[in-house]
Formats: sequence, structure tokens, C-alpha cells
Amino acid sequence: MSETTTLDTQAADWWQTEIIDMRPGEIRYHGYPIEQLIGRVGFAEMVWLMTRGELPSNAQAALLEATLVGAVDHGPQAPSIAIARMAMTCGGSLNNAMASAINVLDDIHGGAGEQAIELYRAIEGRLQEGGTLPQVVAQGLEAWRAEHGKIVPGFGHRFHPVDPRAPRLLALVDDAAERGEVSGTYAGIAREIERQLQAKKGKPIPLNIDGATAVIHAELGFPAPLARGLFCLSRSVGILAHAWEQQCQGGRNKGPMPKGWLWDYRGQVSRNVSNG
Amino acid sequence: MSETTTLDTQAADWWQTEIIDMRPGEIRYHGYPIEQLIGRVGFAEMVWLMTRGELPSNAQAALLEATLVGAVDHGPQAPSIAIARMAMTCGGSLNNAMASAINVLDDIHGGAGEQAIELYRAIEGRLQEGGTLPQVVAQGLEAWRAEHGKIVPGFGHRFHPVDPRAPRLLALVDDAAERGEVSGTYAGIAREIERQLQAKKGKPIPLNIDGATAVIHAELGFPAPLARGLFCLSRSVGILAHAWEQQCQGGRNKGPMPKGWLWDYRGQVSRNVSNG
Amino acid sequence: MSETTTLDTQAADWWQTEIIDMRPGEIRYHGYPIEQLIGRVGFAEMVWLMTRGELPSNAQAALLEATLVGAVDHGPQAPSIAIARMAMTCGGSLNNAMASAINVLDDIHGGAGEQAIELYRAIEGRLQEGGTLPQVVAQGLEAWRAEHGKIVPGFGHRFHPVDPRAPRLLALVDDAAERGEVSGTYAGIAREIERQLQAKKGKPIPLNIDGATAVIHAELGFPAPLARGLFCLSRSVGILAHAWEQQCQGGRNKGPMPKGWLWDYRGQVSRNVSNG
Amino acid sequence: MSETTTLDTQAADWWQTEIIDMRPGEIRYHGYPIEQLIGRVGFAEMVWLMTRGELPSNAQAALLEATLVGAVDHGPQAPSIAIARMAMTCGGSLNNAMASAINVLDDIHGGAGEQAIELYRAIEGRLQEGGTLPQVVAQGLEAWRAEHGKIVPGFGHRFHPVDPRAPRLLALVDDAAERGEVSGTYAGIAREIERQLQAKKGKPIPLNIDGATAVIHAELGFPAPLARGLFCLSRSVGILAHAWEQQCQGGRNKGPMPKGWLWDYRGQVSRNVSNG
Repeated sequence: MSETTTLDTQAADWWQTEIIDMRPGEIRYHGYPIEQLIGRVGFAEMVWLMTRGELPSNAQAALLEATLVGAVDHGPQAPSIAIARMAMTCGGSLNNAMASAINVLDDIHGGAGEQAIELYRAIEGRLQEGGTLPQVVAQGLEAWRAEHGKIVPGFGHRFHPVDPRAPRLLALVDDAAERGEVSGTYAGIAREIERQLQAKKGKPIPLNIDGATAVIHAELGFPAPLARGLFCLSRSVGILAHAWEQQCQGGRNKGPMPKGWLWDYRGQVSRNVSNG
Repeated sequence: MSETTTLDTQAADWWQTEIIDMRPGEIRYHGYPIEQLIGRVGFAEMVWLMTRGELPSNAQAALLEATLVGAVDHGPQAPSIAIARMAMTCGGSLNNAMASAINVLDDIHGGAGEQAIELYRAIEGRLQEGGTLPQVVAQGLEAWRAEHGKIVPGFGHRFHPVDPRAPRLLALVDDAAERGEVSGTYAGIAREIERQLQAKKGKPIPLNIDGATAVIHAELGFPAPLARGLFCLSRSVGILAHAWEQQCQGGRNKGPMPKGWLWDYRGQVSRNVSNG
Repeated sequence: MSETTTLDTQAADWWQTEIIDMRPGEIRYHGYPIEQLIGRVGFAEMVWLMTRGELPSNAQAALLEATLVGAVDHGPQAPSIAIARMAMTCGGSLNNAMASAINVLDDIHGGAGEQAIELYRAIEGRLQEGGTLPQVVAQGLEAWRAEHGKIVPGFGHRFHPVDPRAPRLLALVDDAAERGEVSGTYAGIAREIERQLQAKKGKPIPLNIDGATAVIHAELGFPAPLARGLFCLSRSVGILAHAWEQQCQGGRNKGPMPKGWLWDYRGQVSRNVSNG
Repeated sequence: MSETTTLDTQAADWWQTEIIDMRPGEIRYHGYPIEQLIGRVGFAEMVWLMTRGELPSNAQAALLEATLVGAVDHGPQAPSIAIARMAMTCGGSLNNAMASAINVLDDIHGGAGEQAIELYRAIEGRLQEGGTLPQVVAQGLEAWRAEHGKIVPGFGHRFHPVDPRAPRLLALVDDAAERGEVSGTYAGIAREIERQLQAKKGKPIPLNIDGATAVIHAELGFPAPLARGLFCLSRSVGILAHAWEQQCQGGRNKGPMPKGWLWDYRGQVSRNVSNG
């Protein structure tokens, strides 16, 4: 009997969560009954509550919402969007297409925001130890490059000379900082990085969507890995929209390039299997 | 040269979209520049714009937002949430855990809303051809069962006697109908289905979260398959929150049940591979 | 205490399997100890044992193996292969790329074999009730088209006039039938379908890889849905090979078409968000 | 016109592969026509050809095949298997369940083989520079722990005192080494690691399935990341078998633990949303 008791205790403890409490007829998230949340808090506020444990202020919710709106889509040349569209022509449902697409929002495609926060926070830590902004940014960039290579996450874009989303997001941070709602520290760090990159390269390497959302997420206190999750939530909207549009367009087994285009074969010439 | 021209034309046409237009420095969704949308429209409005092509009214946005808030999470006994948590203990990133979890929001786990809209719309079609609400609901239910079996999507819950999300969502529809913002037709259909199910079974089989969100999505004019996509967007929030909480808790290769619990083996007794 | 006992019993029964039995230091699949299987049975035989519960004869294993070899790859124009390659440029690992790709082997991309078995079995059922092969095939095709539309699964190819895999696989079935190892019934059904399609269309609509593997899987007694699973196992090899080759080639965020190629935008003209 | 030519060239070069060459009616993998491979080479040989570019010797194929057979399944307590089974109760198809499950074969669940090869190869590199086996293994383990922490990949098992798959796989390597088919170097390294771990811990930390397959993959010259891919191919068989068995058993929305078992809630007490 004591073994039974032990096992029961283990089982009750196997899954632990601070997020949701449930009884028949009752659902609470971080203590709040669902029927009080529905119709009273917005979707972005719900994202905050679920990931942070408390409801945000209006100012916090507005900034988070701006980042969720900002990253929804970058068109069918983005791997995530192309995958969603191809997936829908293979016969699955919207959830399947969304899964195949969200899955690739990894280190390179969706992880720049997470990395940018790490970079900003490392610089912010140096700031707190003293030193001027230009000094600590220079040190922070050097340290980043030494560990991670030459790509500075959150800056530069292969398509946009200036990413139209970044200045708008930064302006929202400036406004909030002026109202005392956020510190503005990370906006300052990002601008100094931008300045030093331009000085180094001799041409602008401006803040992009990942670097700009990272400024906001850092200002709002999100742990870096969650930035990737927030990007997934945002981009899911574009993924869904494109998957659905593709379904309406039809198509069966749609490949990446037009029919009649194949690929460049660079391998072995024709040969026969020997009769071993 | 004419072949080249043809191929170019094909290539330019291979991916077609009404969703996003892009030029260096410019991104527009359904015509609206991204920098005008950021900070001015909410995340739920962006979901509407991307999937429907126009910005919603405030009333429409509020109802859609209520459904997105309502379905975020049902705890670690839901396959999607358990999968997200297990996935995070296997070494991948948040995007990977989200993908494995969202992938299972399929016909049975996430598809009830889509099916409920189909049922409501079929009944609404009969209404337009004449007949009283009780008559056409009875006919609609009979037709549904004949084609799909005995489960009526959107009604009944194996855990909640009354799903606390459903009456709240329905009350929002009632309020909107009173203000003339929606028709209220689908709320009426859902309530009549509920009444007839109770009469048939001799006990309440009340509207659940899927049936209630389906009422709203149907009132708002969403095509049925998109309801599944909207559910994926909503549940992604809970999936992300649980994946992140699990990552913070740690754990390696976490199985579904406590260590020391295995499974019930019901197969062949021990045997030897013969030396064939 | 009685409640505890009940719960324990439930827990022990929650996961049930005939596939694997395990004790500390012991692993058995369908009764066979793993250490006897390793080095003595082949990978294709293991696939059979795990999905069917018994070890196959050599003849059965050889036919199954031919289907697993036959469907490994169809190049980067196949959505599954393109997805695997794009995924690898987004920063995840091989398992992630394989998941995104295997996920799309759904009804249209990977499900034709499953459907072809259903078609063959329906015809075989009619054969057992009497009637000549031409008669029952004609009836079977008519019934299929009435329920599923004009596409006959397993026949015709948009790229290959004759799919080089199909005649080879069919020849293996003929050889096995001559040796009395399989019935040959399904090969006969497939050939008669091919003949009737050609007569109807006035041009060859020859058996393709899906139709040919379906002949073998039907001869071997596999349930139709497992044919899709076997296709996934086979195509996984090509998916892995291409994902790995892409990783060796490098590339970051590789889109479906060359840089500088976008898409055809067909949506709303530029417009401003009104100040609502 | 020159721009057109350039774009065409880019397009033809966008997807490059040495794996597959295709023309209407022809498919060749690394130069070999598919119709010569089908029926003549086994599935494991095909895995080798696709990932390595050449057909293996019989000895090489046999060792690779042993590893593919060895890792197929570890039962429903493994996250991958539990996920596959839960997924099938949510309404998707076998390919979807396989995708959600294979996706979690990541660093911790499926990546130990890859890491073990890296460890073995680092030690082998030290061997070539001189020093006795015990010396370089001690140095290699120290270096590994300094960089990666205390877990030595490929050794120890939380369930099996001795993993029954490991000695069997190692015996096959010994036999092959005796016949001069492989060097046996990596088997020696693995055994010395095992000896030193036992000496350090005062109890056996024996080679497990990941460490044993890594010995073979290292002997056969596979790049370390491919070991993860090979594990995915192998485990896919068990994933498919369990997904299919679950589909035959039925079940809807099957959670990880029995109905009536929830989770341990450790969060905020009940509270109300303030009327902000």
C-alpha cells in the first residue's frame, strides 16, 4: 500500500504548472477566471498574461501588440511562407501547414530577435558597470563577434535598404520612454549599434524588424528565448493567411519553381549497378 | 528566345498573392503600408485583415478577439499541451515544440469549430428555404448524423458539465446582436441544437468552446476551414506558455507518465528468432 | 483506498501495446529479444515485424524492400524535398527538417498509394463475387470516380511518360507470382486499369510509383493506411539526403526561387489606414 | 534581354544537387538508374548510397543495417512514441503523427549519437598525435566535460542496467574488425571510456544504444550530424508502428495520463480581473 501511495504522489506531481488551474466548470489562468478575461482583455494582453503571469499595463500591452502586428508576413520568398503554401497543396489541413512552417522559424529564420536581446542585454550589463554608451557598445560588439562571428543579429536586410517596420517600432519606444512607460535604454543601445556599424562598414546597416522588436521585448523585460516564441505567434498569422489563400487558389503538389524548371545536377555521370 | 520569355512569365506567375506587396523599403498588406498598421491596429484586427482582406469594424474585431482569448489553453492533459511540454525536454527550441503541438490540432482536437460552422451553415441554409427553427434544426441534426455519425461537433464536454467559456462568448454575441452588429442567427441555431440535444439525451449536452467560437466565426462570416486556423492561433499562446514553463522547469526526455510507470504489454510471449 | 486502487489500474492500462515489452536489461519486439534481431534480420524485415507482428518470409521481405528502395526521392521540385532543403537553411537540425518535410506527405503528395490499395481491394472484392476482370475493373473505376472524382490514384505522371520505377516493381511481382509467393491478382487488376484508362483517354496513363508500390503492398496484405506510412519511411531517406546536402552547401533563409524573384501581387492598390 | 539571360541562369542554378538526375522516363541516384537499384540493393544500402554517394560493401551495409534495426523503438514512455500515439487520436494521418514525433528527436532525445561521434573523433584525433589510449581518453573526457558539462553522451541508461542492444552491436564491430572490414579503433575508444567512467563513478555506466551505434557510424565514416538522421530513420519505424497501433485501438484526444488525473497546480490563487 505504501508503494501505491508513493506512485500516486508521483503521478500527481508529474505535470506541474503555474499557468492553468481547472475544475469541472472552472478554468483559471494565473488565477483569473476565463469568463472574466473573455471580452475584457485583448489577445496581446492574453499573450502577456500566459507567458509572464500577470496582466500588463495598457502601455506594455500596446508595445507588445505593435511587435505582434509588425512581424506577421514577409511574402512567399520567406521559407516559412513558401513552405506553408506548398504544404497546403499536398493535401493536409491548415494546422499541418502551419506546423511545417512554424517549425522552420529557427535560429536563422526566426531566432535573430532572441539573439539581439542577448546582445542588447550584454551591453546593458556593461553599461551598469560604468563606461559610456559608445565604449560599451564597441566592447559588446567585439565580444559578440568573437563568440558568434561577423553577423550582428537584428541589423541589415538583404532586401530592404531601410526596413520600414523598424523606425516605426522605434518611434513607439521613444514615445513610451518620453511618457516614462519604458526606460528607452535599449532603443539607445540599438541606435548606437547602428551608428557604429555604419561607421565600420562605410554604409548603413540599419536596424531591421528583428532588431526593433528585440528593443521592445528587452524594454518590456521578456526573457530572450521568448522573443522567438513571440515571433512565432506573429508570423503564424501570415503563415495562416498564405496557407488559406493557397488552398483557395488550388494546386496539387506545388513545387518551389514553375513546372518545367528542374535543378542543376552536378553529380556522377550515368553508371550501372555491377552484378556483385 | 521565345522559350525564355515564356519561362520568365511562368516564373513571375508561379507564386501569386493578394496579401502582400513588397518593394525595397516598402511592405503593404492588402494595400496598407506596414508602418501605418503598427501601433494603430490591434493583433486581432491584423488577423482579420490578413485572412479577410479588409480591416474589421470595432465590433467585429472585439468578437474575433474574444474567440482568440477564449481558446488559449486547456492544460497538460490536452494532447497539444502535453506534446509541447515533452518536446521541450528533448532539446529543440520553442518553434519546434510549437510545431509538434500545433500539428495535432487536427479534425478531432482542433477541428470541431470548423465542423460546427458547417453544421450551423447547413441549418441556416434550410432556414432560408423556410420552416421553423425547431424543424430545420431537427432536420439539420438528422442530416449531420446520417453523414458524420453520432457526435455533434461543438456540444458536450468530457470534463466540464458547463464549459465556462461558452455562455460568456454567447453573451457577447447577444449583446452585439442587440446593438445590430451581428444577426444573432447562429446563436439562435446553437441554442436550439442545445435544447434538442438535451431533449433527446435526457441530460444537458451544453455548447462547448468549439461550438461557441463557431457561433461567433459564423456570425462574422469566416469560411469554416479558417475556424481551425483561428483556433491554432489561439491555442498557440497556451502551447508557447507551457513549452516555456517546461523549459524553465528543466527535465530531459520527459515521458507522459511518471518514471517507473510503463505500459500494459499485451503481445506475444517471449520467443526466439529461428535460425532460418 | 479503493479509489487509489482504481486509479492505479487505470494508469497501468492507459498505454497498451502489443509491440514492445521491456524490463531492465530486456527489450522484446513482438516477443523477439532485440539482441537476436540485430545482425540477423534486415531493416525491411524489421519494418514488417514492427507493423505486422510477425517476421516475413524472405520473399515477402524482398518485395517490401523493393518498394522501400523505389520511392526514396523525386528531386527538389517535389514539395517534400524542397521543404527539407529550405528548412535546413533556417537553422534547425536534421530531425526538424525531416519533420517539416514528412508532414506534407499527405493525401495528395504521399497518399496515392493508400488510395490505390483501396481501389484495388474494392475491385478484388467485386472479383470474388464473380464477373470477369474487365467487367469488375470497369465497375470499380466507375464507382471510384462517382465517389472521388476523375483522378484515378496510382496512374499517370505529370513528368514521366512512363515512370521507370513501375514496370520494374511489377516485374518483381510477376516473378514472385510465378514462384507462387504472391497471388498476382493485384498486378492483374492494375494492368487492366491501365488498359481501360488508355482506351478511355486515347493515350497511355501508365501505372506510376504509387500504383506500383500499392500493387505490392496489396499483394503482401498491408492495410491501406500503412501504405502511406511505408511511403513516409521510404521518402525519409531522400529527405534526409537532401537536407544534409543542403547543410553542406550552406545558405541562409533560402527561398523557393532565386534572389531577386518575387511574386505576382494581385491585390488591393496602395491605400491608407483611415484615422478611425 | 541580358537581364533575362542572367535570371534564367540563376534559376537553373538555384537548386543544385549531386543526388538525383532526372529526365522524362529516367531517374538516377548518384548515377545509378532506379530500375537497376530496385530489387538488387537493400533498403540499408539505399540509405548509404543516398547519404554517401556510393554503394557500400556488403560488410559496410551489414553494420549500418544493424544500427538501423537496433534503435527502432523504446516504448510509449519515450516522448517520441508517446507523441506519435497521442497525435493519432487527434484526427490527423500517419504522416502527421510521424512528423510531430520525429521532430522531437533533437539534441537530448536523438542527438546523443551525434555527440558521441564527436567525442570519439576528438579522442581519435588525440590518438593520432601520440599517447596511450588511457591517456587520450582521459584527456578527451576532461575536455568534453569542460565544454559540455558532466553528461558523457552514449553512456549510462536510466532504465537498463546494461542496454541489451549495446553489447550485441559492439560484438558485430569486433567480428568485422577481426575480418579486417573496419578498424575497431572506435570500439576500443568506447570500451576505454566505459572503463574510466566505471572507475570514476564506482559503478558501471555502460555503453548504451546511442554510444554503440555511434561506434559503428564512426567506424563507417559517417559525419557526426548524419548519425542523428540515421537515428531518425530507425526510430521512424517504431513511431509508425505505434501510431498505427493507436489508430487501430481508437481513442479521441488521448492525453498523457489516465482520465481523471490532472496536474499539480502551483500558481496564483483565484483572483478577479479588476475593472481597469
